[in-house]
Amino acid sequence: MASCEADSARPLITLTTDFGLEDTYVGQLKAALWQVAPHSRILDLSHGVAPGAIAQGAYLLASALPYLPAGAVHLAVVDPGVGGKRQALAARSARGWYVGPDNGLFTLAWEIDPWLEVVALDPHKMGLERVSATFQGRDLFAPAAARLAAGAKLEALGTPAQTPLALEWPRWAPGAQRGLVQIFHIDRFGNLILSLPQYLAPPNCQSLYFLGEELPLVATFCQVEPGQPLAYWGSGGYLEIGLRDASAAAHWALRLGQIEEIAFA
Amino acid sequence: MASCEADSARPLITLTTDFGLEDTYVGQLKAALWQVAPHSRILDLSHGVAPGAIAQGAYLLASALPYLPAGAVHLAVVDPGVGGKRQALAARSARGWYVGPDNGLFTLAWEIDPWLEVVALDPHKMGLERVSATFQGRDLFAPAAARLAAGAKLEALGTPAQTPLALEWPRWAPGAQRGLVQIFHIDRFGNLILSLPQYLAPPNCQSLYFLGEELPLVATFCQVEPGQPLAYWGSGGYLEIGLRDASAAAHWALRLGQIEEIAFA
Amino acid sequence: MASCEADSARPLITLTTDFGLEDTYVGQLKAALWQVAPHSRILDLSHGVAPGAIAQGAYLLASALPYLPAGAVHLAVVDPGVGGKRQALAARSARGWYVGPDNGLFTLAWEIDPWLEVVALDPHKMGLERVSATFQGRDLFAPAAARLAAGAKLEALGTPAQTPLALEWPRWAPGAQRGLVQIFHIDRFGNLILSLPQYLAPPNCQSLYFLGEELPLVATFCQVEPGQPLAYWGSGGYLEIGLRDASAAAHWALRLGQIEEIAFA
Repeated sequence: MASCEADSARPLITLTTDFGLEDTYVGQLKAALWQVAPHSRILDLSHGVAPGAIAQGAYLLASALPYLPAGAVHLAVVDPGVGGKRQALAARSARGWYVGPDNGLFTLAWEIDPWLEVVALDPHKMGLERVSATFQGRDLFAPAAARLAAGAKLEALGTPAQTPLALEWPRWAPGAQRGLVQIFHIDRFGNLILSLPQYLAPPNCQSLYFLGEELPLVATFCQVEPGQPLAYWGSGGYLEIGLRDASAAAHWALRLGQIEEIAFA
Repeated sequence: MASCEADSARPLITLTTDFGLEDTYVGQLKAALWQVAPHSRILDLSHGVAPGAIAQGAYLLASALPYLPAGAVHLAVVDPGVGGKRQALAARSARGWYVGPDNGLFTLAWEIDPWLEVVALDPHKMGLERVSATFQGRDLFAPAAARLAAGAKLEALGTPAQTPLALEWPRWAPGAQRGLVQIFHIDRFGNLILSLPQYLAPPNCQSLYFLGEELPLVATFCQVEPGQPLAYWGSGGYLEIGLRDASAAAHWALRLGQIEEIAFA
Repeated sequence: MASCEADSARPLITLTTDFGLEDTYVGQLKAALWQVAPHSRILDLSHGVAPGAIAQGAYLLASALPYLPAGAVHLAVVDPGVGGKRQALAARSARGWYVGPDNGLFTLAWEIDPWLEVVALDPHKMGLERVSATFQGRDLFAPAAARLAAGAKLEALGTPAQTPLALEWPRWAPGAQRGLVQIFHIDRFGNLILSLPQYLAPPNCQSLYFLGEELPLVATFCQVEPGQPLAYWGSGGYLEIGLRDASAAAHWALRLGQIEEIAFA
């Protein structure tokens, strides 16, 4: 009976990568996870991070976090420096565990769920025989995440390390009316997800200026006519700009990572 | 023992959305499902419905239904009117349960598996504290689907409602030789899936006219030469038009939702 | 207890197809698998094989094989000849089982994991009532794979058959300095995966010539400057050519299946 009940509480491992779904990389990663932690439940957050787009990966992981259960292991691999000098990290927070490269990918997750303990992964300490130079997601990060899911302690995976590296982007002064925002992410509808979280914005604004246009700041797309622009607080907690039934990214010809100015009215 | 056996019969929840796989929306939806129904098995039907393409979503769900087991909960979210006045529905049929917006998305599923009982979802009755205006898939529909999968009764989710809204498209007169068809869906091979189900077509036809060309109505792609057009009854039960080893959509420059004429010969 | 332990060792079924994820084909395939083998664990290797690209499918399956556990059932469907005369096969190897069309899709898997026993699937022997002419992945191959996962013997699925058909492509002479390679696959980063496995290449080379350029043969992308080309032995064991932080396929305007010359320096 006990083992059956354990099944209902089997550990959750979330995945955020830039591997895409056309290759077998995600499948190989999952096979590596299941080999060590066969009872774990794997939840794909996104494999559609643009190649090497660390800030987008950081946003995607962090925006989903509030909607994920406590106790999960979050494995994130957007790793343009694979094989180089960047450290490989595993960490424990109040709400779960994190595993991935130390390149800024955890900047936003760390802000909402700070780490209590961090180690730099040590393949020798982990007993790993073969770690390829080009696919450490499968050969190093997945074994680490799976061991955590199977109950291993951080100290069994590596040696104590520092707080993770933080990415730089324009930070909004709390309550400021005007500032710069970076395009963290563009969703499949062409909505722009910007680097401004709601708690930093001035309260009670009805509209804002963006690229010379005044956009209403509303609760839902239905409050504007089809084709019209709008701003809203997205379900991830960040400012988003969209066009009803159309693509804001296409409308303004904007790309991931661009920095633009916003002024609340 | 009993609980182990129950695991083998754990409830199936199918998903049909226009969320895409690049964002974390599908992951957040699944986390919300597992939170309430941890033993459920989740089956992705498609997250590639074109943004807001209700008729395509209706086709994709319905075409898969005959191949899905009885007792499943079908969660479908193609919801351009999210946050507006459209109702949120949950329903029971002879073969399973349905959850999603009342915007026509269930038109075809309802025709092959009529609903016996329908409720309009009531967040207060469901005890939901926070329902975002922009992501009701995660905040309202997923909790409803998961409760049904976990054994809840419809009446615990909302108040009695009407038969769902039906989409309009050209309907084929039973047995007619000629009529209009809408392009419900274009698959990744460029095949056109049309709004004509096989049971309404005249029997024993060998060919049909489409955009000025006579196409053989055959059983398999191998019956025509590479590059040649053909018509066939698709595995989903609808008329399909394709080109062997090429894209019919590209060949005729056709798009989702277009209406064209067909004449059987 | 025994049934609970069996759950932790539940059979793995891997999937490699050209179905894409926009349609419900993969979902229908999985429903068919779970209907016969409800405890199986399904691992998506790739559904992004280009339509009908058999050599790409062969590469994707084979490159993942060394990282997959023994005892798995590998279901692969890239089947441009569906409904034609090609045989439908199921086979047993030292490491697992294989199910799919006899069109060359297993050429590379067979080379690294030769088959010990092969049958041509027989729908009548399998007791299948309805096998569509256009979707044998769901109607024939999935039932066969699921029965193997559920413990059926090969002989219950069909009649003895021959070694599978092998695809033709330029074969590298062992240890040769120069030869032709086919582009097996282009990954999402634009890296070219070529038909030359490492064990056939001359040892200790530092560079190679490709399309008139001399490329360093290095261990990791960090060893060249951004934008510069490089060659490396990919995690799948084959020669790969890439550009750091850019797309090699776009740089040289190369396509899947093209054949080019390589000369080691």
